[in-house]
Amino acid sequence: MKKSLGAQTLLHPTPVIVVGTYDTAGRPNAMTAAWAGICCSQPPCIGVALRRATYTHENILHRRAFTVSVPSRDQVRLVDYLGMVSGRAVDKFRVTGLTPTRSLLVDAPYVEEFPLVLECRLYRNVELGLHTLFVGEIVDVKADPRILDDQGHTDPERFRPLSYAPDTQSYYELGGFVARAFAVGQELTLQPPDPHVA
Amino acid sequence: MKKSLGAQTLLHPTPVIVVGTYDTAGRPNAMTAAWAGICCSQPPCIGVALRRATYTHENILHRRAFTVSVPSRDQVRLVDYLGMVSGRAVDKFRVTGLTPTRSLLVDAPYVEEFPLVLECRLYRNVELGLHTLFVGEIVDVKADPRILDDQGHTDPERFRPLSYAPDTQSYYELGGFVARAFAVGQELTLQPPDPHVA
Repeated sequence: MKKSLGAQTLLHPTPVIVVGTYDTAGRPNAMTAAWAGICCSQPPCIGVALRRATYTHENILHRRAFTVSVPSRDQVRLVDYLGMVSGRAVDKFRVTGLTPTRSLLVDAPYVEEFPLVLECRLYRNVELGLHTLFVGEIVDVKADPRILDDQGHTDPERFRPLSYAPDTQSYYELGGFVARAFAVGQELTLQPPDPHVA
Repeated sequence: MKKSLGAQTLLHPTPVIVVGTYDTAGRPNAMTAAWAGICCSQPPCIGVALRRATYTHENILHRRAFTVSVPSRDQVRLVDYLGMVSGRAVDKFRVTGLTPTRSLLVDAPYVEEFPLVLECRLYRNVELGLHTLFVGEIVDVKADPRILDDQGHTDPERFRPLSYAPDTQSYYELGGFVARAFAVGQELTLQPPDPHVA
């Protein structure tokens, strides 16, 4: 018997990402968010939901572009800070010492020190309520070579990305490999056909 | 210097969820997905992106409701299977032996054996390309008592939810606690004000 926890924004895992933008004066800003996820395969898109009150919200509407930088668990102190203060009040790159690298593909900076980056042009913005969902078309993904495996794929165990637990306001790290998809469940597909389904 | 990996749907972590629906005949279906994320705090919403070709896509449009069940790493074999075959062709609850429990709040079933459940009514559907983004308003969250901590919050370490790695088509498990949010980065907010920002 399950226990009701009420209507709330609860999911595990939720990605901890840092959204990079330029403001109207061309100053780089970086903001941590967790309401995000891949939302289309063709075109490849990521959705990032932001409150209208944020500086990043304003910047994306002006510049029609943003980046998503995915930090490592080792960078959690910086990541947490980037979600605590507004770029309206402070130059977060100066305070953290992080480097804003200008994307050559979209009008936005990414965080050089974070190991995985998605460069996005604004594809759609959807007003949902307190949050606006910004859907970005992913025009390139860039990664530090040290997080890539022998086949050139990203290896989460080499950088331990973070997950945000909404109900305890805590960060967790992504752990170990469990199984191959479209493989570990294969034997169940060998069940005899179901007589009750046309 | 980062390496370009091309335009692709890549993010870590991405949640591994199972979407529960009824078809027009009232038969329960369950489908695994990873293109999902929280997308609004008020009203509390989750976005789940599905290809038009899926049975679940059709079911959500008919029933205007769905559930999101979050499985444990121990259930990975079942979860993988639920993403490999279509409910048009087979009764996946019968094959797996999983139990479809009727939600009392929305017109959809959830997977009784999976430890965390979100019950959603369709709030918005957004055509993006290959995928439709279904935004569901979360009307309740339910959890197995055994995944709750002493304060009644979900504890990811008690059920090890899964993450999908898109570029290697692999499942990973969520790992250990790293730090408290809005706390671990606190000391950086004590930096002196920035003279370059108004």
